[in-house]
Amino acid sequence: MEAIAASAKPTLRVAALSGSLRNNSWHHGLIRAAEELCEECMPGLRIDHVDISGLPMANPDLETDGGNGFPQAVEAFRDRISAADCFLFASPEYNYSVTGSLKNALDWASRGTHKCWADKAAAIVCAGGDFGGGRASLHLREIGIYLDLHFINKPELHIRAYEDPPKFDGEGNLIDAQARERLKKVLLSLQAFTLRLQRTEN
Amino acid sequence: MEAIAASAKPTLRVAALSGSLRNNSWHHGLIRAAEELCEECMPGLRIDHVDISGLPMANPDLETDGGNGFPQAVEAFRDRISAADCFLFASPEYNYSVTGSLKNALDWASRGTHKCWADKAAAIVCAGGDFGGGRASLHLREIGIYLDLHFINKPELHIRAYEDPPKFDGEGNLIDAQARERLKKVLLSLQAFTLRLQRTEN
Amino acid sequence: MEAIAASAKPTLRVAALSGSLRNNSWHHGLIRAAEELCEECMPGLRIDHVDISGLPMANPDLETDGGNGFPQAVEAFRDRISAADCFLFASPEYNYSVTGSLKNALDWASRGTHKCWADKAAAIVCAGGDFGGGRASLHLREIGIYLDLHFINKPELHIRAYEDPPKFDGEGNLIDAQARERLKKVLLSLQAFTLRLQRTEN
Amino acid sequence: MEAIAASAKPTLRVAALSGSLRNNSWHHGLIRAAEELCEECMPGLRIDHVDISGLPMANPDLETDGGNGFPQAVEAFRDRISAADCFLFASPEYNYSVTGSLKNALDWASRGTHKCWADKAAAIVCAGGDFGGGRASLHLREIGIYLDLHFINKPELHIRAYEDPPKFDGEGNLIDAQARERLKKVLLSLQAFTLRLQRTEN
Repeated sequence: MEAIAASAKPTLRVAALSGSLRNNSWHHGLIRAAEELCEECMPGLRIDHVDISGLPMANPDLETDGGNGFPQAVEAFRDRISAADCFLFASPEYNYSVTGSLKNALDWASRGTHKCWADKAAAIVCAGGDFGGGRASLHLREIGIYLDLHFINKPELHIRAYEDPPKFDGEGNLIDAQARERLKKVLLSLQAFTLRLQRTEN
Repeated sequence: MEAIAASAKPTLRVAALSGSLRNNSWHHGLIRAAEELCEECMPGLRIDHVDISGLPMANPDLETDGGNGFPQAVEAFRDRISAADCFLFASPEYNYSVTGSLKNALDWASRGTHKCWADKAAAIVCAGGDFGGGRASLHLREIGIYLDLHFINKPELHIRAYEDPPKFDGEGNLIDAQARERLKKVLLSLQAFTLRLQRTEN
Repeated sequence: MEAIAASAKPTLRVAALSGSLRNNSWHHGLIRAAEELCEECMPGLRIDHVDISGLPMANPDLETDGGNGFPQAVEAFRDRISAADCFLFASPEYNYSVTGSLKNALDWASRGTHKCWADKAAAIVCAGGDFGGGRASLHLREIGIYLDLHFINKPELHIRAYEDPPKFDGEGNLIDAQARERLKKVLLSLQAFTLRLQRTEN
Repeated sequence: MEAIAASAKPTLRVAALSGSLRNNSWHHGLIRAAEELCEECMPGLRIDHVDISGLPMANPDLETDGGNGFPQAVEAFRDRISAADCFLFASPEYNYSVTGSLKNALDWASRGTHKCWADKAAAIVCAGGDFGGGRASLHLREIGIYLDLHFINKPELHIRAYEDPPKFDGEGNLIDAQARERLKKVLLSLQAFTLRLQRTEN
C-alpha cells in the first residue's frame, strides 16, 4: 500500500537557476521564496538551487572525449540538471534578454550526446522594471525550443520591482505577500504539468 | 581642398566582435575576412577586432564608483566600444540565441552613465546550420533596441555552413567567394548607414 | 474487447489551418499531404481542414451577448476549433511573421469565455524562401503562449521551397518524398504529444 | 529668407495606422491625440490617419499586372503609404502579437516592385494590459526588418490602460496628461530621426 501511495505522489526535484550573479539578487530571493513555499505547503516539490556562478564560459575547445567530456564544474552542473524532473528559471532581464551567465549555463548543459534539459517541464519567474523581465522570458522560451523544454503557459510571473509597495528587501528577499502567492501558483502549475508529462500509459 | 575632401570621407572605425571563444571559429574567420576586404577595397572602413574572451561574467557587484567603475578588462573593453563609429557582430547561434559570451560583452558595455553602444549603426553576420544563425540575429536585434543600436536591415548574411560547397576551412577561414562577396555588401551597407546617421545638418 | 481497443487508440481530430488564401498555396498542399498520410498510414489521426478564408476581420464591435456571441461564420469556425484534439498550422511567412488571415483566425477563436485553443497540442509546418518560413513559426509560438497551446518542439519542418529539387508542383501539391517523410514525422510527434497530454491519472 | 527657413524645415507627412477596428479604440484615440499635438505645437509634423478597415484580406491571387496591380482599395492605401515620410503605428496587442488587420495592411503595401515602406522611419505606440501592448511591438519591429523600416529606439510608449488613473475615456480619447506628454516625446523623436535619415550629403 505504501509503495503505491509513494509512486502516486512522488517528490519532484526542481532544479532552480538564478540568472544573476549579484549577492543580493532578487532572483536568488525568488528561489529562496520558492524553497520556503515548497517546505511549507508543497511536499510534492523539492527545490535544488543550482549555482551557476562557477561555470567557465562555454567553449567547445574545452570539451574532450569527442564532445562528451567537460571541465569538472561543468560535469557537476550537468549532473544536477540531468537529475532534475523539471526547472524553475529565475531570469533577470538585461538589455531585453537573458543574462550572459544564464545563457552560458543553458548552453553547457545542451552539449554532447546526452541532452540534460530535454523533454522536461519548466517555468520562468522574473522581476525587473517596465515589463518585470518579461522580454527576457520570451527569449528564454525560444531557447527552450531547441533544448526541448516544455514551458508552462500560465500563470506568468513578471514582478515590477520598482513599483510600490516594495517587493523585495535590501537583501533580495521577496517580501510582498501577493507576489509570493503568485509564485506559489507558478509552482503548482509547474508541478501539475511535470506530473502530466511524466504519466505513463494507462 | 584635399584636406576638405579627406574630412568629408573619414575612415570609420568598426568594432568587430565575435561571439565565439573557439580558436578556429567561423566567426573569427568572418571578422578576418572583413579585415581583408577593408584593406583591399574599402579604405573608408577599418576593422578593430575586439576580443571578448577575457571579460569576467557581468555582475553589478563588481562595479565601483556608483556604477561607473569597472574591472580593468571591462574598462579597456568599454573604451574600445566607445571609440567605434559602428559595430560588426559575428554572432554564432547557440540554442536559438546569441552566445553567453557575446551577451556578457553587450551587457558590460551597457552599464553605467556612459552608454557605449548608443546611437550607432550595426550589422550582424553569422554562420551555422539550418537558418545559418538567423534566430540568434533576431535576438541580437531585440537586445539592440535597449542598447539603442541602429541595425542595417539589408542585406542579411546568414551562411549555411554545412552545405556544399564548403564555406570555411578547418581554421575557420572564409573560403567561399560568394559568401565573401555578400560580406562585402554587408560592409558597404554598414558604411553607408553609418555615414548617413553621422551627417550633420546642412 | 472492441471497446477496450477503441479507447486505447482513439482517433485524434487534428484541426488543420492554412494561413494562405491562394488557390494553389503550398500550405494548402501541405495539409492535403497530411490528409493523405493520415489515411494511408496513421489511422489514429484524422485531419479536419478548417477553411479560414470566410472569416470577417476580428473586431470586438461585432461581438454580442457580452462578448460571447459572434458572427455566424465565426461561430462555425470556433466550433471546429473547439472540437479538435490538436492543431496543425500550415503557416506561410509574410514579412517575417504569420499572415494577417491566420492571425485573424487565431484571434477570433481566442475571444469570449470559452477558450477554443486552450491546453491542446499543436505543430507548425511551413514552406518559403530563406528560412523556409521559420521566422513566422517563432511568432506563432509566442502567440500560442497566450492561447495556451502546447507546441511540439521537434521535429521542425521549414521547407526551403525555392531550392532544387522542386518541393511543390504548380498546384501546390507536395511532390518531394523527403519533405513528405519529414511531414509524417511531424504528425507522429504531434500524435504522441497529444496523447501524452490527454492521459488521465493512473 | 523666410521661404528658405521654411524649406529647411519641411513639414513631414506621418502616415498613422491604427491596428484596431473598434469604433472606440484606444488606438484610434492615440492617433487623434497625435493629430492634436502636431496641430498645437509641432508644425513640422502632419498626421495622415490612414484607415485600414476597408482592405480585403491579402491574397496574391487578387494581384494583376505581374504582381503590380492591386484591388482599388489596396491601390489607394499603397498611395497613402508611399506618400508618407514616416510612420506612426498605434498597434494593439492581440494574443501577444499585432492584429490580423494591421498585419494585413503591412503585407499589402509590401507587395510588388514598389516597396511602399522601404527606408523610412517609424515609431510604435500602444496601450493594453500587462505590458501595455509591448509584446506586439516586438513583433512589429521584426516585421519591419523585412519591410526595411527604421524604428526609433527611444522613447517607447506602452500604456498600461487598466491601471489608475484612467488613461482613456469611453470613446477611446487619451485623457491622461502624462501619457500625452510621453506621446509628444515619441513624435519628437520620430521627427528627429526622420529628418536625420533624410539629410542629403553636405
